[in-house]
Amino acid sequence: MTETRFAPQIDKTETEKGTILRPKFDTDGLVPAIVTDADTSEVLVLGYMNEGALARTIEEGEAWYWSRSRQEYWKKGATSGQVQTVVEMRTDCDQDAILIKVRVAGNGATCHVGYRSCFYRTVELGKPATDKTVLKTVETRVYDPKDVYDKA
Amino acid sequence: MTETRFAPQIDKTETEKGTILRPKFDTDGLVPAIVTDADTSEVLVLGYMNEGALARTIEEGEAWYWSRSRQEYWKKGATSGQVQTVVEMRTDCDQDAILIKVRVAGNGATCHVGYRSCFYRTVELGKPATDKTVLKTVETRVYDPKDVYDKA
Repeated sequence: MTETRFAPQIDKTETEKGTILRPKFDTDGLVPAIVTDADTSEVLVLGYMNEGALARTIEEGEAWYWSRSRQEYWKKGATSGQVQTVVEMRTDCDQDAILIKVRVAGNGATCHVGYRSCFYRTVELGKPATDKTVLKTVETRVYDPKDVYDKA
Repeated sequence: MTETRFAPQIDKTETEKGTILRPKFDTDGLVPAIVTDADTSEVLVLGYMNEGALARTIEEGEAWYWSRSRQEYWKKGATSGQVQTVVEMRTDCDQDAILIKVRVAGNGATCHVGYRSCFYRTVELGKPATDKTVLKTVETRVYDPKDVYDKA
């Protein structure tokens, strides 16, 4: 792991019971961030933050991520208007995951497919897990991305 | 990526809009699984599943993980009694994350530190992100792990 602006992890007790943020980034320098709706608690997306994105989110109170596909900082909503204002941030026992509770601006969607949440499909349970395991869409889209991006 | 029992990802449209589970495992063969309380929607933990753990969870309806530290399958609750019965499983748009909504048996805790949720501490926002960024414990423990494990 590379050195960061944050405090390093020293021992298990300090990490689990301490009062200082000591985030553990993975070998790619990232920490996963679970994003929930602050009002409904619905899980919206799982994003990834590097040191800089986590720092910007803490300082600005709006969610920043590191785009793994584009390899660049990504201020959620910068182009879509779906800015995420962070109401609360938490970390977990071993400080290798982040949870942020947000309010979403713009059209209220988080998912680029047009749904409020990226988790719009259920997985069928109680049957053999195979290459035919069924997904079912259980949410309604907030908007059709084609209506937005085709105009751009 | 290694071949799995699940269907492979073919193209973006099928992954995002299809009706077949096509999980994308990372270079370690894992997919992150967000675990929430099915009744309160509280985020309990972020776990990791390999192909086998995901398959077992789908088939049995109880949560299995892959322990990254012990490098072995881990049926949650097998020793603690904190078994997670899966009420619903979802996947996200690009199928590289899982969400399970669970009911927790035993003493109702998920975190080994003794809390219902691993996310028992908030991160202070709106100040410079430094090696002194403050965490605050905002939850109450369900039990003291010492009382359990010291007896074992």
